[in-house]
Amino acid sequence: MARHLYGRRWIKTTLMAQEGACQLSIGLDVGGTTFAGGVFAAGELLADGSWSTPADKNAPAVVKALADSVHQLLTRANADISEVRGLAVGMPGNVDRATGLVKDCPNLPVVNGLNMAEALQNRLGQLSVFVANDAYCATLGELRYGAGREVENLLMLTLGTGIGGGIALNDQVLRGPRQMMGEIGHMIIVPDGPKCGCGNIGCFEAVAGKQAVVDLARRYLQYGRESRIDDLTGGDPAEITPQVVAQAARQGDEVASAVMNQVGYYIGLALCNAIVMCDPDIIVLGGGIAAAGEVLFAPVRQTVKYRSPYTGFDVNNIVPAALGNKAGIYGAAAVVEEGLA
Amino acid sequence: MARHLYGRRWIKTTLMAQEGACQLSIGLDVGGTTFAGGVFAAGELLADGSWSTPADKNAPAVVKALADSVHQLLTRANADISEVRGLAVGMPGNVDRATGLVKDCPNLPVVNGLNMAEALQNRLGQLSVFVANDAYCATLGELRYGAGREVENLLMLTLGTGIGGGIALNDQVLRGPRQMMGEIGHMIIVPDGPKCGCGNIGCFEAVAGKQAVVDLARRYLQYGRESRIDDLTGGDPAEITPQVVAQAARQGDEVASAVMNQVGYYIGLALCNAIVMCDPDIIVLGGGIAAAGEVLFAPVRQTVKYRSPYTGFDVNNIVPAALGNKAGIYGAAAVVEEGLA
Repeated sequence: MARHLYGRRWIKTTLMAQEGACQLSIGLDVGGTTFAGGVFAAGELLADGSWSTPADKNAPAVVKALADSVHQLLTRANADISEVRGLAVGMPGNVDRATGLVKDCPNLPVVNGLNMAEALQNRLGQLSVFVANDAYCATLGELRYGAGREVENLLMLTLGTGIGGGIALNDQVLRGPRQMMGEIGHMIIVPDGPKCGCGNIGCFEAVAGKQAVVDLARRYLQYGRESRIDDLTGGDPAEITPQVVAQAARQGDEVASAVMNQVGYYIGLALCNAIVMCDPDIIVLGGGIAAAGEVLFAPVRQTVKYRSPYTGFDVNNIVPAALGNKAGIYGAAAVVEEGLA
Repeated sequence: MARHLYGRRWIKTTLMAQEGACQLSIGLDVGGTTFAGGVFAAGELLADGSWSTPADKNAPAVVKALADSVHQLLTRANADISEVRGLAVGMPGNVDRATGLVKDCPNLPVVNGLNMAEALQNRLGQLSVFVANDAYCATLGELRYGAGREVENLLMLTLGTGIGGGIALNDQVLRGPRQMMGEIGHMIIVPDGPKCGCGNIGCFEAVAGKQAVVDLARRYLQYGRESRIDDLTGGDPAEITPQVVAQAARQGDEVASAVMNQVGYYIGLALCNAIVMCDPDIIVLGGGIAAAGEVLFAPVRQTVKYRSPYTGFDVNNIVPAALGNKAGIYGAAAVVEEGLA
């Protein structure tokens, strides 16, 4: 471990000696529940961390939490803010990259209307601050440093509190004129399905996001079925999380497997629809829900195998995010690199 | 009319005088039921026509029909094949543009595996022949010469026997590495819906393509409901077409309106899903079914208005194809221009 840190420290020192000061990039990846951050030197992660998002407070509280995390990250990397060339923040919604304005984050509404770039500059000094969509960041991270290193065309999904998506074509991440391109979480998967936070019904996020997974498990359990889920939560439905359901499913629990199969079916349907719209070489699944592993990937692949005959998509090309839940921070660092290039 | 033809003849003659011989481009747009073609000089349509596709015969019969149409078009334009710089054929399915191979046309399977470019060159002589996807052509046609002239980002749908789609971003039509990008006809709209020609169930094409519209009308009428549709068909269900249903709906017929509302709902759902995947400035609806006009566009717009709150897409930007059913031949001519540029 010491050797590992020493190695990274060596990289940083060498790079700084080669190219002068201000060689560090910081990437933040903000979700509705938690946010993560990392300090990078030339795409190499030097230090990282994750924190709770004060989503129930106000915009200044969120800005303060993000700025505090930057200082903590620098301390962990044994670096000074004067060494930082730029910071990029991936936000869970629609942002204006040109101005840094947060336009609409359904799962973090307290920052809607905030100029995040300005707010962070006010707290951190004259740092270059970029604001991007979180799924854009995750997609760019996997494309440049992760599962997409060998391909030019991919679809990336972030399955968490919300569901985001990103499309890369010809080695570029596409977002479209309103940065809506790839917002697969609001694709209608079950036309008469449950309501979604966006004001629609039957959205992918409403049937396969974190709350949907938890609700599904609770509904199965309310009839008194025996399940490992109860062992893992002490029988408290409030303690059920997608991670608990995944763990129980991996242990062979039938209720948890049924939940995973149903969620996997919905994810598979969404992928079928996305495949015809963006023709990816590979599909990369990231975010907390994708961390479930094979208990989720198996029903996803089965659904795509039988429900996408026209495209004949090879389901072996549905792969986990190589950067795990760090795709967003890697990609945010890549946003800094590309923004300052 | 004579004056009109005279005007076009003047354009052609002038252009040929300016730039030498071989100034004409021919575009063909092949569907599962009919095919159309046009002779163009610098994007100006000189002569056009449409013919039945011998879809129930074999590949040589289809090639012969296409080659014969080229000669007929040239006769109509009072031109010789030596004046033609290139020919492009829009095919209803997956093609390899680099080789001219037809890979998979679900609604015209007799040509699957045929090298259409070679086959047409063998019949027509050493003409440059390009093969492209029909929806690619229609999208390029509307983007360059039609409803998309003023925008850079659009989604184009061709609603006919099959349903095709095309995406333009930053003024380029995107098709993806396997030319599947925009194949919205095989998006799953009703997960447990009717079977589709592609081997899937619930595809957009299976609930809103020509056969679906006709089947829906027949099912409404099988209970003996009174309808203008019967007046228009002499009471013969075999005579029902989407055009007949649209005509009856425009005359206020309730059964026909119910069919249009249901099909419009499905089209609207597909558009909602496409909007989050491709973030278009406008959506252009073409093909025989879109020719229904307001009786179809009204329910389409209503559905998108209420089912796409996340994007807030302005439903006034759902517009008919400006080139009507000629978008495909205009776009095929543009393929020749771009292919020979």
